[in-house]
This record gives sequence, C-alpha cells and structure tokens, in this order.
Amino acid sequence: MSDPMERLAAIFERLPGIGPRQAQRFVHFFLRSSGAIRRELIQAMQQLGSGVHQCPECFRYHAGEAATCSICKNPRRDEHLLAIVAGDQDLAALESSGTYRGRYFILGGTISLASESTDGLRIKELLASLPGRTEAGLQEIILAFPANPEGDATAERLREICKEAVGTNCKISSLGRGLSTGSELEYADPDTIKSALDSRR
Amino acid sequence: MSDPMERLAAIFERLPGIGPRQAQRFVHFFLRSSGAIRRELIQAMQQLGSGVHQCPECFRYHAGEAATCSICKNPRRDEHLLAIVAGDQDLAALESSGTYRGRYFILGGTISLASESTDGLRIKELLASLPGRTEAGLQEIILAFPANPEGDATAERLREICKEAVGTNCKISSLGRGLSTGSELEYADPDTIKSALDSRR
Amino acid sequence: MSDPMERLAAIFERLPGIGPRQAQRFVHFFLRSSGAIRRELIQAMQQLGSGVHQCPECFRYHAGEAATCSICKNPRRDEHLLAIVAGDQDLAALESSGTYRGRYFILGGTISLASESTDGLRIKELLASLPGRTEAGLQEIILAFPANPEGDATAERLREICKEAVGTNCKISSLGRGLSTGSELEYADPDTIKSALDSRR
Amino acid sequence: MSDPMERLAAIFERLPGIGPRQAQRFVHFFLRSSGAIRRELIQAMQQLGSGVHQCPECFRYHAGEAATCSICKNPRRDEHLLAIVAGDQDLAALESSGTYRGRYFILGGTISLASESTDGLRIKELLASLPGRTEAGLQEIILAFPANPEGDATAERLREICKEAVGTNCKISSLGRGLSTGSELEYADPDTIKSALDSRR
Repeated sequence: MSDPMERLAAIFERLPGIGPRQAQRFVHFFLRSSGAIRRELIQAMQQLGSGVHQCPECFRYHAGEAATCSICKNPRRDEHLLAIVAGDQDLAALESSGTYRGRYFILGGTISLASESTDGLRIKELLASLPGRTEAGLQEIILAFPANPEGDATAERLREICKEAVGTNCKISSLGRGLSTGSELEYADPDTIKSALDSRR
Repeated sequence: MSDPMERLAAIFERLPGIGPRQAQRFVHFFLRSSGAIRRELIQAMQQLGSGVHQCPECFRYHAGEAATCSICKNPRRDEHLLAIVAGDQDLAALESSGTYRGRYFILGGTISLASESTDGLRIKELLASLPGRTEAGLQEIILAFPANPEGDATAERLREICKEAVGTNCKISSLGRGLSTGSELEYADPDTIKSALDSRR
Repeated sequence: MSDPMERLAAIFERLPGIGPRQAQRFVHFFLRSSGAIRRELIQAMQQLGSGVHQCPECFRYHAGEAATCSICKNPRRDEHLLAIVAGDQDLAALESSGTYRGRYFILGGTISLASESTDGLRIKELLASLPGRTEAGLQEIILAFPANPEGDATAERLREICKEAVGTNCKISSLGRGLSTGSELEYADPDTIKSALDSRR
Repeated sequence: MSDPMERLAAIFERLPGIGPRQAQRFVHFFLRSSGAIRRELIQAMQQLGSGVHQCPECFRYHAGEAATCSICKNPRRDEHLLAIVAGDQDLAALESSGTYRGRYFILGGTISLASESTDGLRIKELLASLPGRTEAGLQEIILAFPANPEGDATAERLREICKEAVGTNCKISSLGRGLSTGSELEYADPDTIKSALDSRR
C-alpha cells in the first residue's frame, strides 16, 4: 500500500469513532488544505513524541518542561486528597468542575469485565506511591470511576487494594450517585433513583 | 369535519409526541383492527371517566373502589416520610425503585420559569394536609423533583413553604445529585461532577 | 385486568411505534383532559365502525356516503392508468404529489420474504377487476411498491400475474428508481447510483 | 500556543464533523499509540504533498507516477461518455456502482445559492477540454450532481454552458430521480414521487 492517500485513510480509520467514509473526508481535507496546515500537523505530531512527557507522579501527559506536571508540582494543591481516575480525560473533567483541589493518580483504564484482569493498569505504581503520600498527610482516596459496571468493578478492586496499603487512618470514598443535571425522575433507572433517595440531603 | 378518520386523527395528533403521520397510522391501525379492539378502547375510555378517582390524600389517579388509593390506605407505609413529586409518573418511578416505603403527595406539576407562578399546583391542598401528617408522626419531607431548572425552582419554593408550616422538628430534604447509572465522567457536566464530589461516600 | 388505566395502556401499547412509557403518557393525557375530548374520541371510534366503508373498487377506507369512494366515482380520473399500491398511506402519498390522475387498487400489503406468501393480499379481487378495467380502456398498470426487498418481490410477482391476465395490449411499469430529493451522490448506495445512471435523461 | 497537544487538537478540530471533545480523543489516541504510528502518519502526510498529483484531465487527486490518472489513461474507458461531478468522492461513488465505463471531469464544487457564483469551479478548464473530447468522439455529457438545490442550480448552469460549447451533436443528460433503494412511498416527498412516476418503466 504505497498510495499516501490510502495509507493516511488507514491511520484515520483507527481513530476512535471514525469509519472509512469520514477517514476519506479527512484525507481530502488535507489534500485541499494548504501546505502550511500539513506542515503544522507534521511538526505538532513530531513534538508529541519529543515535547510531551508523562508525569512520574500522576501519569498524565503534559507539555511542561519539567518531568513533573503543573498540578503535582503545585504546592497549593491539597495533599490530603488523592483522586484516582481511569484516564487523562477524567482528570480534565474533574478539573473543569472547579471544585476539586486535591491530587490525582491516573490508573490508565478500568478493569475489563471479560477478563477481570488488571493488566495495563498502574496498580504497582499506585502502591509504590502510597507510603510517600501517607507520610505527606494523605487522609482520603477518592475513587473517581465511571458509573458503569467496569467502573464499579475497578472501584471495588481498588478499595480492597488501597485499604490494605493505607490502613484505617485514610478514608476511601467513591463519587456520589444520584440524578445527574437535567434528568427527569420519570426516565431515571431504578438504581439511580435508589441512589438519589439514599443520598438525599 | 364529519369524517370520523379525520376526527380521530385530530385527537391523536394532540397526544404528546405524536405528529400528523403517526396519527394517521393510529387511525389505520384501528380501521384494520377487529371491532373487539375498538369496543375495548371505547369501554376503557368510558370507565376512565367513571371508574378512575383521584385519591383525596396523595392526588394520584387510581382505579380502586374506595376514594383513597392503595398506597395511602396501606398501614405498612411509613408515615414518617412524605415524598412530594410533580406527577403520577414520578410516583411510579419512585415505586419502581423498590426502596421507598413512605407516603406521597402529587403536586400536579412544577413551577414554570417564565411565569414563576404556582397556579395549578396543589400548594393549598398540601398545606391543609401537613398538620394531620405532623400529628401522625411526619419526620421528613423529601422534595423529589426533576434535576432541571423548573424542578430546582419548585423545590426551593416548597422548601420555604414547608419550613414555615412544619417548623424545625421535621427535616426537609431533596433527592441526591451525582453520576447517574451508566454515565462517564468525561461526558458529565461540571455541576454533576461537583455534586458527585460533594456527595462522595 | 379490570383497571381501565391499565386496559387503556395495553391497547395503546399495540399501536405502531408505541412502547409502555408512551402508552402511560397517553393514558395520563386522557385522564387530565376534559370529558369532552374523551367523548369525542369515543364517538369518532364508534363511527369508525359504522361510518367508514372500504371502497369495493380500490379497497381504500373512506367516509363517503356511497360505498364507492370519491376517486373511483370521479369520471375525470383517467381510466387508462391503474396504480397498484400496498396500502392506504401509499395512495395518499401518490395523491399528495399532485401528478397522478389515474385509478388505484390497494393490494393490502406486500409479500413477506420469510413466507413468500400472498395470503392476505387482494390478488383474487385484483384479477376479478381486470377484465372490466381492460374493457374500460386500461392501457397501463403501474406497480407502485416501496423500493425495498418486499416491495421488489411483490412487484415481480404481480408483473407475472398481471401479464397473464391483461395480455400484451396493456403495459406494466414500475416506479422509477434514482436519487431521491436531497440525496448526495457520496452517500448513495451502488444500486441507487446504477438506477440513476440507467434512468438519466 | 506551544503545547503540541493543544496545537494538534486545534488542527483536528478543523476536520469536517469534529468537535473539541473528539479532537482531544484523537490527540490521546496518538499519545498512547506507538511511535511507529506517529511516524507513519508523518510520512504519509509528507508524501501527500509530494507524491499526490491532480490529474490534468479529470482533476482528481491520485498517487500514480504519471501526471495523468489511471482512469484518464485507460484506453478501455468509453470516450463517448463524460460524467461531470462536483468532487473526488462523487467520482468514487460512481466508480463503486460498477456500471459506468466513461470518462470524468471534477468541477471542484457546486454553485453556492447565496452568491450564485461559479468562482472556484473549473468551468474554464472544462470548456478548454471539450473541443478535444468532441474530436475524440464525445456523444453524451452526464451532469452527475447531488439531488439538492445547489446541485440542481449547478446542473442547470452547466447545461447552458455545455450546450453552447458542444452543439447539438452531443447529448446532455442528468442523473435520474426517483425512489432511492430502501425508501417507502409513505415517507417520500412529493417531488420524489413525481420523479418516480415520470421515470417509471
């Protein structure tokens, strides 16, 4: 396959949510675009390899000059709280809510229900970091996983693992369940209604 | 308009979510159906007027023989709890969750944000019922409204109204907010994430 | 099941495209509506049985006083053309285009691909009507079926049946295929493009 | 904006149909992917500039070694037929139908209804090519534009322009309209039904 249009389309088809037709449209976008846009893409893609690091503490991708990311370096972030999330985008979602001021750890995914395996998840790295965090004053681990079976299985497993590691002095919590903004009672599932009743205040 | 097909289509078009084309399909369904189904519809519709009452306590529609509905009559329902809901379908949703064992009051809608008016809502009937309910042991009013601006405005107004009526011995709560079943952090709005963090446990 | 609300919901659930939740919403619409609307529905439904006839020539449902419908009675409709359609709504669609001035015959459905059976279709009635129509000057039978496998199978079968009945003096045609209004070449399936090329003009 | 993740997201957001959230997902796909995939994208993107030509006859983009594309070079393609299409993807759609064996010309777009301008369309290039094509035996120009107002306006304008250029010896046709595969009569618009009746066969 030496046709660069076909090779490009094959790469675009691997992007999440992109089928053959939209991949073709992307190729034609770049064919019709100026050379400047193609060069900009090439340059940014090259720097993705060289200029982006994974933070050694929270494991998020960032473009800062130091290895450690701006959140982990920030002395004003609360060391008493540690939110464990599945991926970079979940960290971004928590940041965008503007209320969380603690630390993060990115696990790298959730447990697959098929295999129940934790392969590929940074369990070892998490456990290695907990003694230092405890010493620094950690008081609560927040398991911030999606409200689906994979997220629930991951939270359950991590609760056990963390409990053993941090003992009883550190609380372990999960995100609250209930009605999400905009939802009607009438269309809510029984589980969500049960949670909303349980967490009423 | 004396054509019964057109008259029937005009009624079906008034149903929630039904446009002209689907109204026509309903008419043809009844044209092609047996006379037995048409007679069954006519009979059930006639009994809707005569055989269905509105419960004088919770105001839901029911087909029981007595005026008071089966929930309000049930001595095993918990009199300490009163859930105020907007409509019959919200009551049905709470019942289907299988965890609520208290009493209900159907307000008849939510405050419209345009008019901020409570016209058409059963505020007077609610207030008239509260002394009796307090005497019977009411300890908590649960404002179970949808998680949208209309629901929030209604809950806020009712909180004030009820507080004045029941005093400080009766708690007033609202349904908990958070991630609803199946939701991903990545797609949750900041408000929902904030609620999920606030109600973590 | 003597609860009229449940009986009504059960009937509404049988309507095409209506699930349990929407059926409940319809019941509550009629509960909250005035008695006048319920009486109007009951009356129209009663007249559907008594005041609507099926035309003995084209078999469509109509509310005219005579048995024969207004199209079949209309001397200005062209007797040279006969469109055979699957159902009343297809006749309505052809009428709404404003270009067809011929006669109709409603077959009552299409061949099911599973059974390949013509049960329930008015093949016999169609064949019985053809000698009279031929005598009256019929020159073309238009097979106006949907552009899907069921429609294609029905058109194919009827083409054979009609050919034998009317001989070679009467043309038998099918609706043209091609790009439908609003469609892009890029998203058209190969069959449609082939038809659009074949029927270019 | 020196963060390569943000720069990359900004380019992806310019792709057709891609919003900020999906652009972020693409960036994370490339962050997590191997360096090999990034290098493959960079290489294919570089070759898009150097290894892809626009055919001087039909103006489609292709990766062949010669300037002229494989269709225009192919002596077995029928020189009697010329299909004029809006873009590369329309040519691909006609090819995928497997029935067209003639030549192509890519106009580069359709007339915008707002401006009614033909700016950016290759009218001049088309007119320059017609004498040669006529000499080579051209007998029919097929205007293969989308079945929407822009496509119709373009076809109308090109019909006038081509008529003047090729005289009466060359036929000018448009793609046929009618029911497209899978469509029901009931949901077809009156225009499509009219076309389907007109092009019945």
